[in-house]
Amino acid sequence: MEEKAFQDFYPDEFAHCYGCGRLNKDGLQIKSYWDGEESVCRYVPEPFFTGGFPGYFYGGLISSLIDCHSAATASAAKLREDGHALGDIPLSRYVTASLKIDFLKPTPMGKPIELRSRVLEIKGRKIIVSTALSAEGEIRAKGEAIMVLIPENR
Amino acid sequence: MEEKAFQDFYPDEFAHCYGCGRLNKDGLQIKSYWDGEESVCRYVPEPFFTGGFPGYFYGGLISSLIDCHSAATASAAKLREDGHALGDIPLSRYVTASLKIDFLKPTPMGKPIELRSRVLEIKGRKIIVSTALSAEGEIRAKGEAIMVLIPENR
Repeated sequence: MEEKAFQDFYPDEFAHCYGCGRLNKDGLQIKSYWDGEESVCRYVPEPFFTGGFPGYFYGGLISSLIDCHSAATASAAKLREDGHALGDIPLSRYVTASLKIDFLKPTPMGKPIELRSRVLEIKGRKIIVSTALSAEGEIRAKGEAIMVLIPENR
Repeated sequence: MEEKAFQDFYPDEFAHCYGCGRLNKDGLQIKSYWDGEESVCRYVPEPFFTGGFPGYFYGGLISSLIDCHSAATASAAKLREDGHALGDIPLSRYVTASLKIDFLKPTPMGKPIELRSRVLEIKGRKIIVSTALSAEGEIRAKGEAIMVLIPENR
């Protein structure tokens, strides 16, 4: 049986995000999982996500992947902090307050992308998530996201 | 006759970006223009670019629009700094070294988005661009991008 991802536990109402909503049929539908203290997401983008430089992926897609994987990581981290396991209760939904991406080197097209995130801080409704995005074993971009719990969700 | 946009002057080789490439038929094909000292881009995203919160646009799309409009603004600013008018010579192509987005309030779907950018600094191969993204007359997100001239381009 396939392991369920963080995004599979978002309430239906919050599951239409273009990047990570399982109910958005036109979207990317990325999937995030725990791997020890890190969360991980693997993704092979469609070939039309070309960047400005031939042969490399679109920077906006890289920002989007980091953004959505950070949001899911925040939700799963909060659940764990509250003493629940995935599937016990629906995930709370976080939105992005700020996002900082450093593009260290181009990301080659046609290769799997791996995102690995760590939670730097959980404080009240705010969670800070740090992410490294790699391809072919090399870090291509780093991101830091400040995620905030949607107030209407609780 | 319709005014040509910055992106219409990218060399063909650099015109396949998902966000702004005029030759990417699956892409967003955003268009940027001067409006005095500011550059402006107006865009109505497709309805499938839903965010995590119902009724609001996808944050990753907002990052992408700011990224691509900043890149085009950097190219056009460099051209102008070098004493050329649009169309005199092909635009140089900039890539993003870093991008910082602050999401101030949600961006409602179905309404036109307007981006307005200013060049904060031109120094050697690096250009810093500041952007405000608005909908319904209110600023929804602010971005600062550090753009770097592609070395192979010169």
